[in-house]
Amino acid sequence: MKQSLAFIPTLRDMPKDAEINSHKILLKGGYVKQHVAGVYTYLPLAYRVIKKIEDIIREELDKIGCSELLMPALQAKEAWVESGRWANYGKELMRLTDRHDREFCLGPTHEEVITTVVRDSATSYKKLPLALYQIQSKFRDEFRPRFGLMRGREFIMKDLYTFHTNEADLDEWYLKVRQAYINILDRLNLHYGIVSACSGQIGGNSSEEFMVLCDIGEDTIAYSTTGKYAANLELCGLEEGATAPDGGTIKYAKGIEVGHIFKLGTKYSEPMGLSFVDVDSSKKPVIMGCYGMGISRLLMAVLEQNNNDLKVLWPTEIAPFKIHVIALDKPGTTNFEIAEDLQNKLEQKYEVLFDDRAESAGVKFNDADLIGIRYRVIVGRRAAEGIVEVKDVKENTTEEVSIADLTNYHFE
Amino acid sequence: MKQSLAFIPTLRDMPKDAEINSHKILLKGGYVKQHVAGVYTYLPLAYRVIKKIEDIIREELDKIGCSELLMPALQAKEAWVESGRWANYGKELMRLTDRHDREFCLGPTHEEVITTVVRDSATSYKKLPLALYQIQSKFRDEFRPRFGLMRGREFIMKDLYTFHTNEADLDEWYLKVRQAYINILDRLNLHYGIVSACSGQIGGNSSEEFMVLCDIGEDTIAYSTTGKYAANLELCGLEEGATAPDGGTIKYAKGIEVGHIFKLGTKYSEPMGLSFVDVDSSKKPVIMGCYGMGISRLLMAVLEQNNNDLKVLWPTEIAPFKIHVIALDKPGTTNFEIAEDLQNKLEQKYEVLFDDRAESAGVKFNDADLIGIRYRVIVGRRAAEGIVEVKDVKENTTEEVSIADLTNYHFE
Repeated sequence: MKQSLAFIPTLRDMPKDAEINSHKILLKGGYVKQHVAGVYTYLPLAYRVIKKIEDIIREELDKIGCSELLMPALQAKEAWVESGRWANYGKELMRLTDRHDREFCLGPTHEEVITTVVRDSATSYKKLPLALYQIQSKFRDEFRPRFGLMRGREFIMKDLYTFHTNEADLDEWYLKVRQAYINILDRLNLHYGIVSACSGQIGGNSSEEFMVLCDIGEDTIAYSTTGKYAANLELCGLEEGATAPDGGTIKYAKGIEVGHIFKLGTKYSEPMGLSFVDVDSSKKPVIMGCYGMGISRLLMAVLEQNNNDLKVLWPTEIAPFKIHVIALDKPGTTNFEIAEDLQNKLEQKYEVLFDDRAESAGVKFNDADLIGIRYRVIVGRRAAEGIVEVKDVKENTTEEVSIADLTNYHFE
Repeated sequence: MKQSLAFIPTLRDMPKDAEINSHKILLKGGYVKQHVAGVYTYLPLAYRVIKKIEDIIREELDKIGCSELLMPALQAKEAWVESGRWANYGKELMRLTDRHDREFCLGPTHEEVITTVVRDSATSYKKLPLALYQIQSKFRDEFRPRFGLMRGREFIMKDLYTFHTNEADLDEWYLKVRQAYINILDRLNLHYGIVSACSGQIGGNSSEEFMVLCDIGEDTIAYSTTGKYAANLELCGLEEGATAPDGGTIKYAKGIEVGHIFKLGTKYSEPMGLSFVDVDSSKKPVIMGCYGMGISRLLMAVLEQNNNDLKVLWPTEIAPFKIHVIALDKPGTTNFEIAEDLQNKLEQKYEVLFDDRAESAGVKFNDADLIGIRYRVIVGRRAAEGIVEVKDVKENTTEEVSIADLTNYHFE
């Protein structure tokens, strides 16, 4: 794709209102644009990454038997009255009234809707288990939105709900989803800990959080250098440098919560009448689990862990493009035509961003540092001889390669 | 994927409140579930088709140089005051107030937001043209929502906005997008007409509608049997059976509007201050185009044209699955295991839905008719001999095929 059409409006100056690196990069690199506090447009570069994160999530959830649907953002008050949350949720729930004076809210989460969706259908033990998820914009009227996408008022989430006839089946699915979360975060190249609300033990708990370890975010996490133990600082009380339960050494980080998995039990199914007829013909409430993952937050968490002094290097699977072809000469020159030709050739095999703008080399390289693509093919002074430079940002190497060899070059 | 986990809650009885075939199929086939009037959950089967429609749209728009982003649903009143639409839009605009008493609306369309997104960046003729689109849930508080997804209050749309330095460039892009729309609708196997607001002529107009030709919908279209002429009945006044301007014969249909393309000119850029510095250093308002396509409507339009007495046959590119493996025997039997084995083998090459439910053959075939997959592999009484039946719904043929040959069978 041509960079002139890609709409990546990088900024010359450092944005004033960004406190953390990922937020600075998002604004300076032309990834997002704020509409109002806590409400953003994802510009093309960020949205390409987000779609790739979404596809990884879909792959890992589909693999364990989950099924994707899409629920509405508009939710009728009635369902929230049934669950008891209409009165209790408070000001973070965005409420509105339609032209017929009927009350609605904008979904911050979808336990109520999903319960109404399955309750007419999951009427027998034969129809269970079920595991249904969606990827969708959610709404929460934060009192003080901050850190860019970290605590927004409109944000992208994956939410999964599972439905079971008994606790043992819920436990089995909970562990399957937990493993899927581990696979997803590993593929995103993240350094994270899994923190129980009660202890640092793995599995069998009623709620666990997936915390990306960085010195930003809103919770302090104590984690073991082995990577096998993590806990909320307030709950475990372990000092930095102490020996962790798994034998490693305790370190601290202010973590970013990117996932939260719960065993809900019958919290929603009982008040909302979601029940099934069991093998013995008795009627029982369905047992539920719920599993959230913050996608716009993941984007920031990955950026926070994959930048060096605001120079970005996206993990392979979610990089917005595979190759960044940079023409040093201006449109209309022979060298530019060579670069354009290279773009077309490489695009048959790879996702290519072609910097075709009439900008100086300095501007182009600064922008490339923010865009964060691993391989740069620089078409410069030796282009007419059939030679270009290939820079591998990850390995920090540069070599001259003949154009003839480039389509067979080993781009990982 | 196993049908027991796919959550396709088909209904035994015909839903009472559905008037048109596509709406009946959506409800009876377990494609959607109504939350409240005009607000639906897209269940997994419908959402698989929708994602495929979306990918076709992305492919065709990316091919002509458009770039995808995602704007917020929450839109601040201020932008709508700038454009003058806050006062004029009326009751169809859903409005709400945040916890700080700031006013917002839920986007029915995004001219205001996109104008604010590009106006800080597209400041020079060097930065234009631009073509930016999104695929997103939109909101419109219809007085009387009806026909299922046809006229909903929350619905999925693709909206594209283009930005130009002069009218000639807008004209060029308008024709490129128009051709992309033709490609999209052709790939969806739709029979449609392109109707100008003023005449039936092609191109060069300020606004055209893409109308799928069926005897439902809200407008009557006069179209030529050649497929090359279509016009709004009210405007052209041609009688059914008359000779069309292109030599064909005029027929009537009540059309479904699935796309609308506009030359906006400076309608938004002038009041909202979106301007650029031209080659001659003069400041001018940016010239805009806008292009909508209703994705949830497309789903209904395709269903309306691809069913025979409520039996569905999805067009190849957007079919929810390629092959429907149907086990006639119950879980636990040898034949069932053979079917399961077949699912695993075929899934290495194709998208497969495996009916693994403990239901009767009659229920399974009725459901298969609603699910609409072209190829059915029926694992029945001859399975133990290594023989299954392959039914091609499109060609209406059935043949016995040996399991050994099946992975090399020509599924188109």
